[in-house]
Amino acid sequence: MSARHSDAPQRVVAAAAEMLATYGLNASSVREVAKRAQAPFGSTYHHFPGGKQQVLAEATTLAGAKVDALLDTCLQGAAPDGLSLFLAAWRERLIRSDFHMGCPVLAAAVEEPIDDAPDDAQRAAADVFARWEARLTEALSRGGRPSDQAKGIATMIIASIEGAVAMSRATRDIGPFDRVAAQLESLVADR
Amino acid sequence: MSARHSDAPQRVVAAAAEMLATYGLNASSVREVAKRAQAPFGSTYHHFPGGKQQVLAEATTLAGAKVDALLDTCLQGAAPDGLSLFLAAWRERLIRSDFHMGCPVLAAAVEEPIDDAPDDAQRAAADVFARWEARLTEALSRGGRPSDQAKGIATMIIASIEGAVAMSRATRDIGPFDRVAAQLESLVADR
Repeated sequence: MSARHSDAPQRVVAAAAEMLATYGLNASSVREVAKRAQAPFGSTYHHFPGGKQQVLAEATTLAGAKVDALLDTCLQGAAPDGLSLFLAAWRERLIRSDFHMGCPVLAAAVEEPIDDAPDDAQRAAADVFARWEARLTEALSRGGRPSDQAKGIATMIIASIEGAVAMSRATRDIGPFDRVAAQLESLVADR
Repeated sequence: MSARHSDAPQRVVAAAAEMLATYGLNASSVREVAKRAQAPFGSTYHHFPGGKQQVLAEATTLAGAKVDALLDTCLQGAAPDGLSLFLAAWRERLIRSDFHMGCPVLAAAVEEPIDDAPDDAQRAAADVFARWEARLTEALSRGGRPSDQAKGIATMIIASIEGAVAMSRATRDIGPFDRVAAQLESLVADR
């Protein structure tokens, strides 16, 4: 483990994102995250002096940046094709985790910290949502949508995918996700 | 408190729904729920022998039934008007809680129990989503939509409202909710 010691903070943030996506914000303790990252508990507080909220905020930001990069790749071409690529990636993630892993950004958004800690992770989630909205709005505008219409559709895409992932997790069934995907493809194709 | 002793189980379930909506599934311990309900901790296990998962499953079912009753009331007339009434009720709830309280059913859907407990609350959430979908599908079909199209729109309504509530909570701003509401009203009016 000592050979990997230097990348411990990165492993902690990655493990925190997985815990968020599976168990939610309040259950993702620094102790459990450090254990899953095979990182020494003591040094985790050294690297993250803000403790749990700092780790979870960084995990939310990292997860958001990964999705943003995926969106960027998917949206190089036309928006409808890009959306289909993005939906396929989400579909694959849901099925691969057997519906046990959702979106860490949503997880950070929907839980107030039980210990009255500062809501750093929730603020990070707000920034991520704004970034995704801007990315999608830009792609839809490039495709010829007026910008206010583009922003509404961008918010709709994010909200409905987040909700569909949650519905498919609860039902352990891809059906809800597929129905929402079909609706979104029709919404974005509809000019 | 003894005068209210007999309704302690109902108060426990109601308090659990509020905790779910605010702090999520894993943070909603029986001890904390009982405290908020002003119910004796010991007798809570007597009334709910299945413990935490039973309390949270019953809270999810109760919250789902309340929303279903609201949907039923809203959808007595035409679907577009009913949807607007329903959206207004959700908007009011978000603002009244200063964006701190979301949907308990979503909360139950997106967290695996940290202690490997049975996922009773998640199963309850699956049943609630199916009930809401059936209610909306029926209303949209009554309005003349073919039934497969109606089901897709019903899923889209639920998923996007759930996601919009989460986005508005993170940003502490009604903007995302209002943009999704406008998109949904246009989707349902569009014949």
